[in-house]
Amino acid sequence: MNHMFTASDVFDAYQRIHPYLPQTPLEESFYLGTENRSYFFKLESLQHVKSFKIRGALNKLLSLSEEEKHRGVATVSSGNHGVAVSYASKLLGIERALVIVPTITPKAKIKKIEYYGAQVMLLGSNYDEAHTLGLAYLKQHNMTYIDSYYDDPMVYAGQGTVALELLSQNPEIDTLVVPIGGGSLITGCAVVAKHLKPDIRIIGVQTDTCPAMIQAYQDHVFYETFPTTGTSICESLVGGIGKLSYEMLADYVDDLIAVRESTIRRGVKHMLLNEKFVVEAGSATTVAAVMDEPDRIGGKNVALVISGGNIDGDLIRTIINE
Amino acid sequence: MNHMFTASDVFDAYQRIHPYLPQTPLEESFYLGTENRSYFFKLESLQHVKSFKIRGALNKLLSLSEEEKHRGVATVSSGNHGVAVSYASKLLGIERALVIVPTITPKAKIKKIEYYGAQVMLLGSNYDEAHTLGLAYLKQHNMTYIDSYYDDPMVYAGQGTVALELLSQNPEIDTLVVPIGGGSLITGCAVVAKHLKPDIRIIGVQTDTCPAMIQAYQDHVFYETFPTTGTSICESLVGGIGKLSYEMLADYVDDLIAVRESTIRRGVKHMLLNEKFVVEAGSATTVAAVMDEPDRIGGKNVALVISGGNIDGDLIRTIINE
Repeated sequence: MNHMFTASDVFDAYQRIHPYLPQTPLEESFYLGTENRSYFFKLESLQHVKSFKIRGALNKLLSLSEEEKHRGVATVSSGNHGVAVSYASKLLGIERALVIVPTITPKAKIKKIEYYGAQVMLLGSNYDEAHTLGLAYLKQHNMTYIDSYYDDPMVYAGQGTVALELLSQNPEIDTLVVPIGGGSLITGCAVVAKHLKPDIRIIGVQTDTCPAMIQAYQDHVFYETFPTTGTSICESLVGGIGKLSYEMLADYVDDLIAVRESTIRRGVKHMLLNEKFVVEAGSATTVAAVMDEPDRIGGKNVALVISGGNIDGDLIRTIINE
Repeated sequence: MNHMFTASDVFDAYQRIHPYLPQTPLEESFYLGTENRSYFFKLESLQHVKSFKIRGALNKLLSLSEEEKHRGVATVSSGNHGVAVSYASKLLGIERALVIVPTITPKAKIKKIEYYGAQVMLLGSNYDEAHTLGLAYLKQHNMTYIDSYYDDPMVYAGQGTVALELLSQNPEIDTLVVPIGGGSLITGCAVVAKHLKPDIRIIGVQTDTCPAMIQAYQDHVFYETFPTTGTSICESLVGGIGKLSYEMLADYVDDLIAVRESTIRRGVKHMLLNEKFVVEAGSATTVAAVMDEPDRIGGKNVALVISGGNIDGDLIRTIINE
């Protein structure tokens, strides 16, 4: 149990990372609200490198010793976490930063990671292979692994600063709606939010094509991997969940909702054409949940965590024409 | 000459308004930069009510006496300025706030202004009529007129805080590219930027369908109104210029560029699909200028002022499909 974390770890994380990061806006929706209910977007899509992932990565890197930093850091991710580790390493002047990605990774993603300074290494033909081979490589080279969502409490505490920040921006928030991929974001948020406001409601949202957390709690099984049924546009959400989130979240979460892909697409479109924000599909799950089940979500002042803004241009175009 | 203003007025404006407004991001472009040149977006599209206009309106309102505030404030505008005055009045608890718009104004715009609390009055069949009748009305009712761009130095100084803020965010900025509608934004920015950095270059951009400022300086004529040739999507830029900007800007501006509507459309699209920001067409003129004439703009660290984010959903859809 020594890897659990508490609200105090989230406070510490905030002290550590906030000199490096902007406070992202908490913007009231002009369109979703009703007479008795207001909705607020916590726009991590406007965070540095357009994702909350920078918070956890930065908190972890800032906790390393000089010697560890000198030996170098590495991760396995072709997505937001890989970019976040690259950017955070540059911010802190860590020279040896390595991001391992599978050989199938599109050039544009590799270019983006390299842009911030990390070295990219192609290893393995899919994510699982990249992960296995990558961990072996960095162990051999004595580098520190920067976990994305599996079980590092420093990473979880960093992600939790999203909730700490939004509650300081609007202490009236009574309901928090958070997308679930690996689960580090919602778990970090839930731990600190329930500490500050025991009555706050925490609602997790997944795509119904990959409801890994919902199924895990139903089956009482930790799903480290989980299949996707059909196709999902929620690139950042599909796959299994983190061990630490599986162990901790049940004590904090009030409801878990699976939303349809068709509603997620409408969510992306609404954010773009009406609210005028570009958000990634995984983040639009929270908007979709409000569209489909406003009364189940409830609340008077509801915060929707918009976790990221990295969405493919072709997907934007397709969705807008639907 | 008593209506001119100086950098010190912009400093004062910043002191006045900054407790009420967020610092908007200055984000480096991932796509536009070259080896020797970096571009940064000053994202006033993420300002409260999605436009820089809130800065000038708020500075003006904060300078009023209690008695003036009690008597009430009014303006004539169906666009960003009208929304800004409504929102700023609410922020400051000014109860009598009136926004006069022509009878042809779309319902969505009226709803948005009313949303923040101001009363909307329909007057006159077009903007000029609304303006004339509106000024008579508010004089009769002893309300204070909140100028949008014509000649109020308090409004100009407020808009200038955009440059003050971005130079504090990145003191290396050597070139400032600013869209010109009435001219209050570029004039405010130029006055403070040249004071802080005499070598900084100030470049104004207009749509070539309505190059009022460019023509005014060529003809040595103050064009209070100016026709649009063909159609423009730059709703916030078309029309005449302000008297104060006409009188002051010539001493500060280094270049004025007219950009084609087709390039402006590509600019909106680039911002959306690549940079992932929703920006209004008038603001995309600065991006268009970089696309068409990067060497004329020059500079090593170039700031593009993205003045607003209010763009019609149908226009987004049309442009994305081009």
